[in-house]
Amino acid sequence: MQKKIFAVILSGCGHQDGAEIHEATLTLWAIHKNGADFQCYAPDIRQHHVLNHITGEEMSEKRNVLIESARIARGKIASLATFNPNSVDGLVIPGGFGAAKNLSSYAFDGANCTVNKDVAGAIKGIHDAGKPIGALCIAPVILAKVLGNVTLTIGQDQGTADNIAAMGAHHQPTMQGEIAIDRDQKIVSTPCYMLNSRIDQIAEGADKLIRAMLEMMN
Amino acid sequence: MQKKIFAVILSGCGHQDGAEIHEATLTLWAIHKNGADFQCYAPDIRQHHVLNHITGEEMSEKRNVLIESARIARGKIASLATFNPNSVDGLVIPGGFGAAKNLSSYAFDGANCTVNKDVAGAIKGIHDAGKPIGALCIAPVILAKVLGNVTLTIGQDQGTADNIAAMGAHHQPTMQGEIAIDRDQKIVSTPCYMLNSRIDQIAEGADKLIRAMLEMMN
Repeated sequence: MQKKIFAVILSGCGHQDGAEIHEATLTLWAIHKNGADFQCYAPDIRQHHVLNHITGEEMSEKRNVLIESARIARGKIASLATFNPNSVDGLVIPGGFGAAKNLSSYAFDGANCTVNKDVAGAIKGIHDAGKPIGALCIAPVILAKVLGNVTLTIGQDQGTADNIAAMGAHHQPTMQGEIAIDRDQKIVSTPCYMLNSRIDQIAEGADKLIRAMLEMMN
Repeated sequence: MQKKIFAVILSGCGHQDGAEIHEATLTLWAIHKNGADFQCYAPDIRQHHVLNHITGEEMSEKRNVLIESARIARGKIASLATFNPNSVDGLVIPGGFGAAKNLSSYAFDGANCTVNKDVAGAIKGIHDAGKPIGALCIAPVILAKVLGNVTLTIGQDQGTADNIAAMGAHHQPTMQGEIAIDRDQKIVSTPCYMLNSRIDQIAEGADKLIRAMLEMMN
């Protein structure tokens, strides 16, 4: 049987201004652990900003989302502009502020956010093809904005849950390591660092998410 | 019973010029998974250089090892200059070229390399206190240089094994997910990306390494 292929959209490298590194790494780990393979993608755009991850202060330099994401992907990454929904069996978006600052403007605009057009295109393309989508941490807000009427989780944060409702989606509260499954819309989500979590709980959530997506691929 | 605490020395963020992200993340995961906790450290020094992880080409900017390592540690990291061997139960060094370019000069000088003085001091302090040390991927070469007569693994690469012998240490060949244990000297090592590996094999090696170190702490 041919290996299932997951597209993974990264948003930089570091949770304050890019992809959350533990969530991204453990997504890739869960994919390999469950006998599948992945292709990483990121938009070839400038990061919204660069933050010192010790102080939280903005640094003067400029970084590119695709080039920084390559650090997590060990160089095997493609520009999201080249994405073809026919080439993969599903799509996963790890969290981190990169999802809310680079892939979308959620961190600044909340429910009124815009989504990068290649990110929105990839989500719509996969969804229209009847393939599953997984989202971790804050990344589910992007699915709420692009797809509207889907059920997903960001854990327990009421403000984010309210924004999800304002975008036309439905929030299902979850705790550490749990997932929310929308079987009709083929959406799986897990809260990760939206809750205070140990790293093995991030792994548990990512593993359950990938398993649930693999079931939807059969 | 009080949780065991592992010091983890990071060397930047990205395998070409810093700490290997999967190895570092999965070391932290294995520590949490096995009921222990960690404190991350990195030297507060400039990175040797910054490489574009897609092209491998040098970039013009300058980055700091401690600040970039904080991306993996989610901000909870201390300067290695403040390290006190009495505050932890063991020490782990993940791999990536950062170990060979920032923590030591191994990438440039081979068996004649020098080791950053705070890195060497931390290794000697932990070793003299009779506490275990773990090293992943290329990081064992640092232990060979600082400690000399110890047994460790970097997988199968003969050139690196020859350099380890030239530094007075002993190489034990291993395959993916395996560890080498020096019970007398309390050293555990695993080859990780020194071999062509799946990410779940990196996790397997990191998990075995942390378990073997925990046994040495009892």
